[in-house]
Amino acid sequence: MRVLGVDPGLTRCGVGVVDSLPGRRARLVDVGVVGSEPALSIDLRLLHIATELEVWLDRHVPDVVAVERVFAQHNVGTVMGTAQVAGLAMVAAARRGVPVALHTPSEVKAAVTGSGRAGKEQVQRMIARILGLAELPRPADAADALALAVTHLWRPTGALQGGERHELTAAQRAWAAAEQSARSGTHRGAPSRARR
Amino acid sequence: MRVLGVDPGLTRCGVGVVDSLPGRRARLVDVGVVGSEPALSIDLRLLHIATELEVWLDRHVPDVVAVERVFAQHNVGTVMGTAQVAGLAMVAAARRGVPVALHTPSEVKAAVTGSGRAGKEQVQRMIARILGLAELPRPADAADALALAVTHLWRPTGALQGGERHELTAAQRAWAAAEQSARSGTHRGAPSRARR
Repeated sequence: MRVLGVDPGLTRCGVGVVDSLPGRRARLVDVGVVGSEPALSIDLRLLHIATELEVWLDRHVPDVVAVERVFAQHNVGTVMGTAQVAGLAMVAAARRGVPVALHTPSEVKAAVTGSGRAGKEQVQRMIARILGLAELPRPADAADALALAVTHLWRPTGALQGGERHELTAAQRAWAAAEQSARSGTHRGAPSRARR
Repeated sequence: MRVLGVDPGLTRCGVGVVDSLPGRRARLVDVGVVGSEPALSIDLRLLHIATELEVWLDRHVPDVVAVERVFAQHNVGTVMGTAQVAGLAMVAAARRGVPVALHTPSEVKAAVTGSGRAGKEQVQRMIARILGLAELPRPADAADALALAVTHLWRPTGALQGGERHELTAAQRAWAAAEQSARSGTHRGAPSRARR
């Protein structure tokens, strides 16, 4: 399975493509950042990003696009542009018949590090280790996009239906807890993203 | 000049097309609502609205698309979808080389009624009178889209460059005040929209 992760942002939008391998392993296919020039008008910035995201989709033909779920409570100054870029990624995927999955920042941290409250650097180090990279992916937006893709590959699909909970790894349990917390609205207490 | 007004929303997105006529008059060309089914996933909802907005653009070939400026402070529950639909409208316009203008709710009220704090019904009545309609445009989203288009036609382009301020009408002065208020950040005190 191939996943394109998108960490949405108007100035820097992280994009990362990961293939699943047998035995809970994953392989980096491509990673980068799609940006737009703050001096341009908002419509031209969004058009540029939409066009670039379409190039990524057409080049790598993912099975799923995993997009960070954006919350209105976070970063009032940039949240509108972030939400709009997330929307463009979803429409570009839907136009091509590619399913879209949304994952919260807490889910990503939990899936990659085992803790929904892990720091940014911890996520980056784990992503480099998981994908066997010699260096940390830079900038942070690119690493976050890879983390989103890995989160989707490793999502505990059975966890929320109950049942085999005892068989989950620590990371999967933390992921499931983060997802349930998000669904019940208590995600508002999760650490917010302050970098963009 | 032909303006397509877009009152963005995920469940109901108002669209209205207005032509300017000589002597500060305007003519209704078309008005309607583009909707999406709440039961669908967000990516398919956004794709549906994007496709419908493109049909409106291609059918009416406007000179400008006027979109309501969405603020992160308002209606946390629906603001993300509203922002995403606004983004789709902007990208659809930009793809066709059509300029985009953003107007705040206060600017619209001021342009149409002469008061930045006018009520919703007052805006609807004035829009019906301006366009010579026998009935109020329904639903409110459709009326708001027409009001956005008229606001753009009647924008006091010279007002903010200073100079001929004394020649402005009461509505133009209120519009200019609302715009300056928005630019200086004091728009947060303006009445918020609670209907969606």
